Amino acid sequence: MAGHPLDPLFHPRSVALVGMPRDVEARGSGFFHALLDQGYPDHHPLYLVNPNATVIAERPCYSTLLDCPGPVDHVISLVPARTASALVEQCVAKGVRTLHLYTAGFAESGDAALAALERTLVARANAGGVRVIGPNCMGLYVPAEQLAFYEELPRESGPVFGISQSGGNAGDIIRGLAERGLRFSKLVSFGNGRDVAAAELFEYAAHDEESRLVVAYLEGVPDGRALFRALRACARSKPTIVLKGGVSQAGARAVRSHTASLAGATEVFDALCRQAGAIRVDTMDELQDLAVLLSTQARRIAGPRALLVGRGGGFSVLSTDEIARHGVDLPELPAEAQGVLREHIPIAGNSIRNPLDISSLTGEGGSAMRTVLRVAATTPGYDFMFATPDSAPARHSGASRHSAFGTPPPDDEAAREQERRALNELGELQAEHARPVVVVRRNRGDELVPDAELLRTALDAGLAVIPSVPRAARVVGTLLRWRAARAGLAAVF
Amino acid sequence: MAGHPLDPLFHPRSVALVGMPRDVEARGSGFFHALLDQGYPDHHPLYLVNPNATVIAERPCYSTLLDCPGPVDHVISLVPARTASALVEQCVAKGVRTLHLYTAGFAESGDAALAALERTLVARANAGGVRVIGPNCMGLYVPAEQLAFYEELPRESGPVFGISQSGGNAGDIIRGLAERGLRFSKLVSFGNGRDVAAAELFEYAAHDEESRLVVAYLEGVPDGRALFRALRACARSKPTIVLKGGVSQAGARAVRSHTASLAGATEVFDALCRQAGAIRVDTMDELQDLAVLLSTQARRIAGPRALLVGRGGGFSVLSTDEIARHGVDLPELPAEAQGVLREHIPIAGNSIRNPLDISSLTGEGGSAMRTVLRVAATTPGYDFMFATPDSAPARHSGASRHSAFGTPPPDDEAAREQERRALNELGELQAEHARPVVVVRRNRGDELVPDAELLRTALDAGLAVIPSVPRAARVVGTLLRWRAARAGLAAVF
Repeated sequence: MAGHPLDPLFHPRSVALVGMPRDVEARGSGFFHALLDQGYPDHHPLYLVNPNATVIAERPCYSTLLDCPGPVDHVISLVPARTASALVEQCVAKGVRTLHLYTAGFAESGDAALAALERTLVARANAGGVRVIGPNCMGLYVPAEQLAFYEELPRESGPVFGISQSGGNAGDIIRGLAERGLRFSKLVSFGNGRDVAAAELFEYAAHDEESRLVVAYLEGVPDGRALFRALRACARSKPTIVLKGGVSQAGARAVRSHTASLAGATEVFDALCRQAGAIRVDTMDELQDLAVLLSTQARRIAGPRALLVGRGGGFSVLSTDEIARHGVDLPELPAEAQGVLREHIPIAGNSIRNPLDISSLTGEGGSAMRTVLRVAATTPGYDFMFATPDSAPARHSGASRHSAFGTPPPDDEAAREQERRALNELGELQAEHARPVVVVRRNRGDELVPDAELLRTALDAGLAVIPSVPRAARVVGTLLRWRAARAGLAAVF
Repeated sequence: MAGHPLDPLFHPRSVALVGMPRDVEARGSGFFHALLDQGYPDHHPLYLVNPNATVIAERPCYSTLLDCPGPVDHVISLVPARTASALVEQCVAKGVRTLHLYTAGFAESGDAALAALERTLVARANAGGVRVIGPNCMGLYVPAEQLAFYEELPRESGPVFGISQSGGNAGDIIRGLAERGLRFSKLVSFGNGRDVAAAELFEYAAHDEESRLVVAYLEGVPDGRALFRALRACARSKPTIVLKGGVSQAGARAVRSHTASLAGATEVFDALCRQAGAIRVDTMDELQDLAVLLSTQARRIAGPRALLVGRGGGFSVLSTDEIARHGVDLPELPAEAQGVLREHIPIAGNSIRNPLDISSLTGEGGSAMRTVLRVAATTPGYDFMFATPDSAPARHSGASRHSAFGTPPPDDEAAREQERRALNELGELQAEHARPVVVVRRNRGDELVPDAELLRTALDAGLAVIPSVPRAARVVGTLLRWRAARAGLAAVF
């Protein structure tokens, strides 16, 4: 997207790390490693600046920003707050386009003089044509431009645009979604947000053709009107999820100490999101789960009537209660469909009314199991189904050595292979019958953590996988509330 | 405890597996493997019964129960429902004390004839002096007697008495608590509960000297008055936690299909628990977390005023909101204590008001960290503290390579070692200052699952470890509500 004032931010042609530690294992060296990990220096120049070194990690090091031999578009500042003013002057002199102040110790300290310094610095930079990210933040993750602030973040791009005041929460969002198969177009951690902040970023995201889903972690609402306009523009063009920190009194105090933000009244912020067509979620887990739903066929869930297919009677009972707690119904299976199932399923050890507890079914991909899944996918009167294939390696139990999706395999590797096949099978079922499927993992202590590759394959096949029943129930409830709140708006999911 | 009618149930001197499959890998063979795994046959005689085999797994196999060469105290029935009547007659003839009907396909099927058969069978057994567990259940886990129904359950005994209608949920309870370091005195899965059922088991637990904590998963309340009396006796002598299945309309239907139970009105059950002095929890996670709190010094938490010590500004903000959501307060640290901290902690990158976000503190066991922990443990006006040591292996990040409890270690093994040291340190802090500590793991995707040995060491040291902030906040809220509801009763925790 050319022409937007923030466009240069996302496309720097060179980066300088100012205040780069001489010891590459020292605090603050992380940006250097993160950029190397993304392959930055093979892409564009990366300059290291430290007045007390000429070489760091076998790379030339320059005394000051002004000594860098080429133009510098983007500066990452690791210098202490007390020397930041000098750096701002150098940025102006050097023609830097964006200054990312990782430097902290400004307004968030609660000290009035440091808050004034922050204002002065940023005003001077802006007056000199330099946009500022921060202070007190992690800055840019733009995989297409090899920009990152943690190591081991994905190098591939994807459709998610991220906005986060907190750098740590930005990391949790990126890594959490990466493990679920999602990738990012861009993410900005903007900390105290004295210049670049949420409203402008939502505005950018609204028109960014590389971004189809927006997730945000916000702490403050400095200008509610501007934020509302931008959030509305964004939420009307693509799904927009907002996690707000500081919704409690103690949380609001924490927010002041963290990013010097005023949290504002939660009710007002809630109304703002609702009217804008965005959704406010309560937790990091919910943000991630909702992003997964919206990136799969589960986004088409249009109503609350669900089927639950799984194994284990007591587990099905507790799952049913949990699902009901979040406003999702599990209407009883019609008599005719029960009749079909009764022909294929033994009476002992199974329930077929909904939940469908098929504890005693044996044989992977067996005909009885195929019948159950076909009935679940085609019986009229349901909006979607929850499916909970087993994913634990087998142990002998009196109840059964068999799973809803086959005999539990004997070890971790075999368990993964079986989960892979179960996900394939459910993906095909969903594609064939057009009834959304939400795969729910049991998330017991002895279950495998699914590998990211498996979850990515599922996501690419349009299949949502959620780690536990409470989370699945909650996020579907949230999706349905959001749908209701958006009545009258053009569909974006 | 001698003299209670259920005493023989927990101390059989021999077991017969009737209907033992010839193929030891076949469905139903699990009890055989579970008993072997506990070392049963080295303890007391284990008889296999199958009319079509003389040897199974190199052990003698008998045609009928009556052919077993010695007395049989406890029978586990794997026979189909249609032949169960004959087995009951044999049990009576053989002088069997308890019959565990794993056999399913009775009242829970919804079929009136099968429900009548269940009643008849059990009445006949009782008339002949045989107590019945079930039908449709997993039966007994009594590690001191080498009785179990799944493989790989702990062979050691402990203070937890378990009651569960569901066998699968019983497994989740045993394994879930075992991974947290807890062990069982006895557990009974009683399924349809036509004879042995919840009331009698609570009554037993109340007086069982081997049991100091009672956890129960119930589906039905066939006799509310008897259950209330027994639950009250139990809850007044030891902490008693009840998870109830079927609290929703759909859940109540699932309960009928699962154990033929009538779920009853949730409000009535809630009042019953409250008046009895027990606590009803909503989820399996909450049951397990509360059992951990009650088994550690965290049981002494007497009020809602907490400190939160951790790392990561945004994480602290979200944690604070989550904690507030569950009725726990995080009062601001008094100015004097803030002053002490300010002397030891740099202003940039840390918050010291509560939450104490000490992101930038370096050096494991360093003096600054010791100061923070001492201030948190001794500042008056707080009831307890949450502490969230890092447990993820290190990656370079711009923010920091340092943790609240030391520099994050480079790999999984080192991360475990560091977590071990952090837990030791917190255990000693708790012992020294008598302020309860709730250790909260961050539970991000990239965290290690803690090993059971580590959690057991923590538990033995009286230190509660909870997997995530939402769960920790919730379970402390539950503990405090329970305390309030028990006002006037003798303390049992």
